[in-house]
Amino acid sequence: MWGMIATWRMAHDGVLAAKELLEAQASCKDAVETAIKAVEDYPFYKSVGYGGLPNERGIVEMDAAFMDGETFKIGAVAGITDVANPISVARQLSDEKFNSFRVGQGATEYAMLAGFERKNMLTDRAKKIWEKRLAEIAASNLDPYDGHDTVGVVALDTQQQMAVGTSSSGLFMKKQGRVGDSPLSGSGFYVDSTIGGAAATGLGEDLMKGCLSYEIVRLMGEGLSPQDACDQAVYGFEERLRKRYGKAGAFSLIALDKNGAWGVATNVEFTFSVATADQEPAIYMANPGPDQTTVITPITQEWLDAYEARIKAPV
Amino acid sequence: MWGMIATWRMAHDGVLAAKELLEAQASCKDAVETAIKAVEDYPFYKSVGYGGLPNERGIVEMDAAFMDGETFKIGAVAGITDVANPISVARQLSDEKFNSFRVGQGATEYAMLAGFERKNMLTDRAKKIWEKRLAEIAASNLDPYDGHDTVGVVALDTQQQMAVGTSSSGLFMKKQGRVGDSPLSGSGFYVDSTIGGAAATGLGEDLMKGCLSYEIVRLMGEGLSPQDACDQAVYGFEERLRKRYGKAGAFSLIALDKNGAWGVATNVEFTFSVATADQEPAIYMANPGPDQTTVITPITQEWLDAYEARIKAPV
Repeated sequence: MWGMIATWRMAHDGVLAAKELLEAQASCKDAVETAIKAVEDYPFYKSVGYGGLPNERGIVEMDAAFMDGETFKIGAVAGITDVANPISVARQLSDEKFNSFRVGQGATEYAMLAGFERKNMLTDRAKKIWEKRLAEIAASNLDPYDGHDTVGVVALDTQQQMAVGTSSSGLFMKKQGRVGDSPLSGSGFYVDSTIGGAAATGLGEDLMKGCLSYEIVRLMGEGLSPQDACDQAVYGFEERLRKRYGKAGAFSLIALDKNGAWGVATNVEFTFSVATADQEPAIYMANPGPDQTTVITPITQEWLDAYEARIKAPV
Repeated sequence: MWGMIATWRMAHDGVLAAKELLEAQASCKDAVETAIKAVEDYPFYKSVGYGGLPNERGIVEMDAAFMDGETFKIGAVAGITDVANPISVARQLSDEKFNSFRVGQGATEYAMLAGFERKNMLTDRAKKIWEKRLAEIAASNLDPYDGHDTVGVVALDTQQQMAVGTSSSGLFMKKQGRVGDSPLSGSGFYVDSTIGGAAATGLGEDLMKGCLSYEIVRLMGEGLSPQDACDQAVYGFEERLRKRYGKAGAFSLIALDKNGAWGVATNVEFTFSVATADQEPAIYMANPGPDQTTVITPITQEWLDAYEARIKAPV
């Protein structure tokens, strides 16, 4: 068996590339890195890598993490700049016993010294969107923040090993040095090859209040299906958060277990991509359903066409 | 009932100050901040705040976090510099809906703009220790890293609310921008007023592989005593880590529940401080015992005298 699940429609082309690797018995670690690099490299995705929307100062600051489900090795970066593929930096850091989570200037310097590709990550398109938003904020008293679509990928390979990765440029218009959940173990991601893995996308400030990725893996370890684990962790936490914090930001979680079964749960409209040995690669849409369940439907061509038009529309 | 538990002997004076507040029915949030500020301010503690040992470049980069067990609000900083009390910055950030975890230059700028006290955190003594270590590393091929004693404090107040805080200057000789577990929810700390709270100290790179603070709170929520929750989470994870990763760094966890009961577990010699409405403030020593248990003994005057001499010994 092999399998992969990834957050958002944007991950689908990467999943297709990773599928070829997994079918050829490549490692889940290569599959995760390949899938995420495809998203980081594509200029029209506004929340990950190249083309990602910048912080309040116009700087594209990125977060990424990588975890090996065999050894629990973790590598992570936060607030890294001018690096083409943060996921590759995070993966390499996961081999370090010390200093495996690096932030800010220290993260960028590590990547430079290690020879990773240097790249100005601010596209003309992203810069235009940023300038337009600055003008809107100046004109009205608009809440500046939106867009927190992390690419998260969980993979199982034919050797029955598992890995997970995340990559994000974070909240559009975030303050300098703001970090979300994506590089944070337990909140943004978690994986144990003997059980399964999970990853998150959404408002990082709220996701880190719940450690949902860890909780989903733990529930799968108790015998719950990935879908039941996602439903129980996500909707239970959303309820607690509304009661205790008064509100809950948007968040969506994905999970894959060691047998290639998968699940998702979300409190907003959420798209994701799946491929397994038993199941052709496909994009699905998830929405919160009744009684703490999730409604999953195949994506429609109409939705895909509108998405394509939207991400490439003139600014 | 009120109560407080805190990592390491260094926390004891802060616990004594916080005890006065908790007895006077002050908030657990003020108690946590007061206790940790005392450690941050004391120049002879080498792993927290003023006097903390610097990174490889001689810069004191600090991590801290604050969590409110009523609302799950979290504030955190990592790689912050030149700020007298990182815990106070983290506490203020916990009131932000967005941008509540800030790293590097962005964290320092936030603190400056918010009016927190600016301070050169590198003492002459810490600088001497750093220079000496640099010379030792140049002479022999010594592993440069040691010292990762985070101050972590869990408090329960007479209104039955709970909070937790952490503060650390991280690994001595760490690489620029290295972040440990202290600012990471679930790994370094977690608290839920309806259950209890936990905090960690030790090798952050390994602690973030296990999300032990979250796990301990969760186990207390299932009805385990704080001591049983610590024993089960810590020794179970250490075993998994040795089996899967091949080794386990030093780590120690503390927990306090909503009734003021407490527990600790550790894989090394570990001191901690406790005070509750039922129990005079005291320093204890913990060591791993047989069959995944923890042996806790009162600290001896001999140990305290040796400690005092050691932290003030000429460099």
